[in-house]
Parts: sequence; C-alpha cells; structure tokens
Amino acid sequence: MQSRFGGEHARPFDGIDESENRVIVAGFGRFGQIVARVLSARRIKFTALDSSQTHVDFVRKFGNKVYYGDASRLDLLRAAGAETAAIFVLAIDDVDASVRTAELVRDQFPGLKVFARARNRQHAFALKEAGVRYIIRETYVSSLEMASTVLESLGDSSANARALVRKFRQHDEATLEAQYAVKDDETKFLATSREAASQLEQLFAADEAKTD
Amino acid sequence: MQSRFGGEHARPFDGIDESENRVIVAGFGRFGQIVARVLSARRIKFTALDSSQTHVDFVRKFGNKVYYGDASRLDLLRAAGAETAAIFVLAIDDVDASVRTAELVRDQFPGLKVFARARNRQHAFALKEAGVRYIIRETYVSSLEMASTVLESLGDSSANARALVRKFRQHDEATLEAQYAVKDDETKFLATSREAASQLEQLFAADEAKTD
Repeated sequence: MQSRFGGEHARPFDGIDESENRVIVAGFGRFGQIVARVLSARRIKFTALDSSQTHVDFVRKFGNKVYYGDASRLDLLRAAGAETAAIFVLAIDDVDASVRTAELVRDQFPGLKVFARARNRQHAFALKEAGVRYIIRETYVSSLEMASTVLESLGDSSANARALVRKFRQHDEATLEAQYAVKDDETKFLATSREAASQLEQLFAADEAKTD
Repeated sequence: MQSRFGGEHARPFDGIDESENRVIVAGFGRFGQIVARVLSARRIKFTALDSSQTHVDFVRKFGNKVYYGDASRLDLLRAAGAETAAIFVLAIDDVDASVRTAELVRDQFPGLKVFARARNRQHAFALKEAGVRYIIRETYVSSLEMASTVLESLGDSSANARALVRKFRQHDEATLEAQYAVKDDETKFLATSREAASQLEQLFAADEAKTD
C-alpha cells in the first residue's frame, strides 16, 4: 500500500538546499494563504511576497521566508529566489500589480511556472497575454459549487447536478479561449459571446431531449 | 437510460405559476451571474436583485425578472416574490449589505432557503449568526483547486493531491465551526486556532508515516 501523501517524498526536495525554496507565493491575502497552508500541510516550504506585513506570524511559524514590497520589483523577485524557484503562485488581488508581475516574471524568469489568480475575464485575458498558462478566476469555482448545490436543493440528483456544472464549465472555459482569440475586435467578440450562449442552450436542450 | 439532465423535469416546476420564480438571486456580480447562468442552462427561471443596472440584458434575455435596489429593503424583497420563492441566493459582495439582507430574510421570510457567498471567515461568522446554513467563502474553492494543481506540478499524483486537499478542507471547515463556537472569546478563539494548526500537522504527519 502506498503512503497516501507521498511517504518518503514527505520532504520532496531533499537534493535542494533548504534555503532555496522551490515555491514563491506572491500575494498573501485570502487566496495565497490557502495555497500556502496546503503547501505547509504537505511540508513544502515556500517564500512569501506581500505588500503588507499583516501575515508575518503565520509565514514564519512554518519556517518559511517572507519579503515585503511590490512583487513587480526585479530586486525583490531576485531576493526571493526567483532564479532558483520552480513555481510562482501569483495570488496578488490588485489587477495592475498582478499583470505587471506576470510580465516581469515572463521577461526575467522564463523558467518559472506561473499559477495565477484572476479577478475576472478581463484580468484572465491580460494574464494570458503576459504568457501565463494556468489561470483560475478567483470566485469561479466557489460559484460553480454553490450552483451545483442549488440544483440539488431544487431536486436534481447530486450526480446530475455535478455533471451539468462540469459541462457548463467546459463550455465556459472553451468560450473564454474563443473570446480571447478575438478580444481586440469588438464585433467578433460580441458575435463569439452570442454564439457561445446559443451553443450552451443547444447543448443542454440536446441533453434534455435524450430519452430512455 | 436516464436523461442526463432531468428529461421530463426540464421545466421543473410546471405546477407553479411561471410568474412566480422559485429562485431569487440577490447580487448579480461575478458570483451571482455564474449561479444564474447555470440555472438558465438548466432552464430554471430566477428573479434577480441588484443595486446597479449593469446586467439587465443578460437577465432579460432568459426571460427572467430583475429588480434594482437594496436587497435589504423589505418592499423590494416582497416585490421580487420572497413570499413564494423557495431559494434565496445571497451573492452580494458588500459584507454589510449581505448580512443586513440575511437578517431581514431570516426575520421576514423564514421559509426561504438561503445560499450565501462570504467574503472571508468573519463574514461567514456573521452570516451564520444571521441563521444562514449554507455558506461558501468566495475565493476558497478556487484557491484549493490551484493548491491541488501546484502539488501535482511538484510531483504528487493527481489522486494524492486531491485527497490531501479534500482532507485539508474537511479539517479547515471543522476548524471554522470550532472557531465560531468561541468567536466572542478572544483567548479561546486563539487557542482553538493554535490547536487546529497543530492537529492539521499531526494529521498529515500520520499520513506520511503510513508504510506499505
């Protein structure tokens, strides 16, 4: 039986100097803190960057490092070990600061894998433009989970509610891609959005029409 | 074979006058809109309440009703059909307005089932105090999903990463309950938080110690 959470990999990067954390968490608000707490539970150390000193105790408690200041400053990113880290969690809530940081990381540390929090679709587009490949809209997954629970409360089975929400999400994320491709052309953007809405209706109508 | 999304239940409330929607969505920002779009995909009509007129086209497109104003006004809730609705999606982002609305719904429409979006733990406590039973922190589920993906990127299997995050969440939600019980006693609150952090470490350490 394999150990559930990694067994001998409990300290996953033994070959690496412990002073060089593999993960940088930029932005230590509601979002970055949860990611960091999961990492801590998994005994993965991280280096935190935040513009305020609010959360120092928590970060230090786990033996992690913390730097204060604007994460879009090159000297701060260097000090935080951006040259040797593998993963950059971009959890800054301010849209401009987030995009500036993404651009700087792309230009200066192209080897860093960026995981970004986006406020909304526009922010997601800007992050994509800055080369970020993993982007998650910050209230998106909670709102989908609530939607699923509401459907159950209205009588859908749990399995059906989750299947519908999964399909909705696939469609919505494909739409986001399609919108991104035409984002600088307002006419095409609106046409894509309309088309997507109509496709979604057809998609669910087709499901409803299936018979036993 | 059962129809995946409800078959003959495609219009789930045939017995109900169509003018009386069963779902009210208060707050039509990023969160409320996603819940509403899923409902629309499932052909469930809703009544929207929002303080601004930004999203009128979307709401009307699906043949839904919309009211503008402060959702914590009794006359507006009555006009929106709070007396006959079954479900109240409380997706207002402003914390004070959200809590005021929850209190009013509890006092005036105790039969309404409330599904609430919370900004953070403090907001969740206030909603719980106002009698709300389903509460979801707005950035919580997205941040957990990112954490899981980061663990995978660091080498965990997808199954292990998800199992760890699930366990983290169970523990975190139990902690929230425990903190709520002592929220007015700062000493006990801090002790509970410390104890929870130490329990979490033990929980994961125990998992890591499991052998084949």
